[in-house]
Amino acid sequence: MSKRIVVAMGGKAILYKEASAAAQQQEVIKICKSIANLIMEGYEVIITHGNGPQVGNLHLQQRAANSPENPIFPLDSCVAMTQGSIGYWLQNALSNILHKLGCDRDVVSLITQVEVDATDPAFSAPTKPIGPFLSKQKALQEKEAMGGSYMEDAGRGWRKVVPSPHPIDIIEKTSIKKLIDNGTIVICCGGGGIPIVKSKDGYQGVEAVIDKDLVAELLATELQADTLLILTGVDNVYVDFGKDTQRALFQVSSSELRKLITEGQFSPGSILPKIEAAIRFTESKKGRRTIITSLKNAGLIDEGMGTHII
Amino acid sequence: MSKRIVVAMGGKAILYKEASAAAQQQEVIKICKSIANLIMEGYEVIITHGNGPQVGNLHLQQRAANSPENPIFPLDSCVAMTQGSIGYWLQNALSNILHKLGCDRDVVSLITQVEVDATDPAFSAPTKPIGPFLSKQKALQEKEAMGGSYMEDAGRGWRKVVPSPHPIDIIEKTSIKKLIDNGTIVICCGGGGIPIVKSKDGYQGVEAVIDKDLVAELLATELQADTLLILTGVDNVYVDFGKDTQRALFQVSSSELRKLITEGQFSPGSILPKIEAAIRFTESKKGRRTIITSLKNAGLIDEGMGTHII
Repeated sequence: MSKRIVVAMGGKAILYKEASAAAQQQEVIKICKSIANLIMEGYEVIITHGNGPQVGNLHLQQRAANSPENPIFPLDSCVAMTQGSIGYWLQNALSNILHKLGCDRDVVSLITQVEVDATDPAFSAPTKPIGPFLSKQKALQEKEAMGGSYMEDAGRGWRKVVPSPHPIDIIEKTSIKKLIDNGTIVICCGGGGIPIVKSKDGYQGVEAVIDKDLVAELLATELQADTLLILTGVDNVYVDFGKDTQRALFQVSSSELRKLITEGQFSPGSILPKIEAAIRFTESKKGRRTIITSLKNAGLIDEGMGTHII
Repeated sequence: MSKRIVVAMGGKAILYKEASAAAQQQEVIKICKSIANLIMEGYEVIITHGNGPQVGNLHLQQRAANSPENPIFPLDSCVAMTQGSIGYWLQNALSNILHKLGCDRDVVSLITQVEVDATDPAFSAPTKPIGPFLSKQKALQEKEAMGGSYMEDAGRGWRKVVPSPHPIDIIEKTSIKKLIDNGTIVICCGGGGIPIVKSKDGYQGVEAVIDKDLVAELLATELQADTLLILTGVDNVYVDFGKDTQRALFQVSSSELRKLITEGQFSPGSILPKIEAAIRFTESKKGRRTIITSLKNAGLIDEGMGTHII
């Protein structure tokens, strides 16, 4: 029985307390212990991760030093940089842990470009805030100097906003497949992938961010994975979340989930995009399943932990 | 006839004028046009690159924003970040150019760790300056707060210095080989590789930088390459460099070069380390050669451009 699994985690799972490299590497070690469990159980693991807090901090560093000699980079290059750091932390930690378990599998991170459509409606209505809160005056100055879109954010000030277009292709997918087929554990599509569009000169980077759960779903589909494992802050998906009647879902069909969506059970800002990705992946082919659970339960999915969407 | 070639370029070849991502990407496109020539001539190309100016700018950005919420990263994580950005620029540019030439080869960048020996004498005598010039007082304050070594630099102020240990192993070499054997063009070991040492907990990052020419030589040896191509600022290696009697070397044996070294022909700070790497690689196995030339001549080595060390 084939057990190919795509594991997706948020950037917040790695940077939620301390921002130092050492502290983030400690969190990565915890996550990798769970992932190593899956590998030792015979799963063929592919890893992808978010980069929200990390790319945010990089952007703040670039702003702080911004000058003609050391200018701010656009988001495509910044995403590539966080693929480098987070990818390094993951491959270093996971191979160290596997080595201790007597398993000397190769673990590598691939810099990954993800194609989006230049005519995606997201480009005409940027919604994803990045960077610090600014005064209206400062926001208008920046827009004048560097272009881009700025929006007022719920009375807290103005922020730069960028488009969040839909991912349509993973450029390095052939190499990812070759490595997996050779038994290598691959980390890829970090931060939702480096956003690029087709142009007359080939693929060009764009100022955008791609949702990491959507890319994880695309990656799992492209690689013909059996399982998509979405790691998040909660152990399960819940109905009546936060109410007295709250109850965890353990095994649920995608059609039941659809019904719960129409009942307004899931918050659009947090769990809903994950559930929508889960439904699409699960329904894309017979036998596929998605599991949503917490980082600490990642290694225990065969023991029934988490919400299994079948 | 096998034509496997490792191409090494400096970080200064990419950032020598303007530091914006767009300007660096333009330089990368020029370099990749030359590399694409080699590929179209049937060479099996592996690419590695330096990162001096890029990691320097990242360090300045991290200093400018340094705070408990957004602290400076150690060099291992910074090298990983520049592997991400420069790797992305190279793989994007090279695949666009190859695609235009009707060649749809995969081009990927691998995040690469390079092992150094924790007992390398370089660790007790750091010599490689990084970061800005500081006053003596500021240097002592930093040393107190963050550790590390600081040295006075030729009357221009104090700078942080880090060790430059010898590379002994490329951790991801198996995956690099698998990809090359499958026809993929691989970019790896950027910035001399992420420096790591063996410890009881596995491989751990260290505050050091590894010389990119030494890593290029190790990479070429590990991959059983036939040619090591070192790209630099000059078209050839010269004797009597800068004098009236200056003359370019075109074809030269490694033993002739050894003789010229003892005559003091090559400047220790610039061309000498490249010549030493060239001699070692060329002499490591029958039939191996090293070519030292400028970026613009990279695609013309079969037309006799550059200094061929045989």
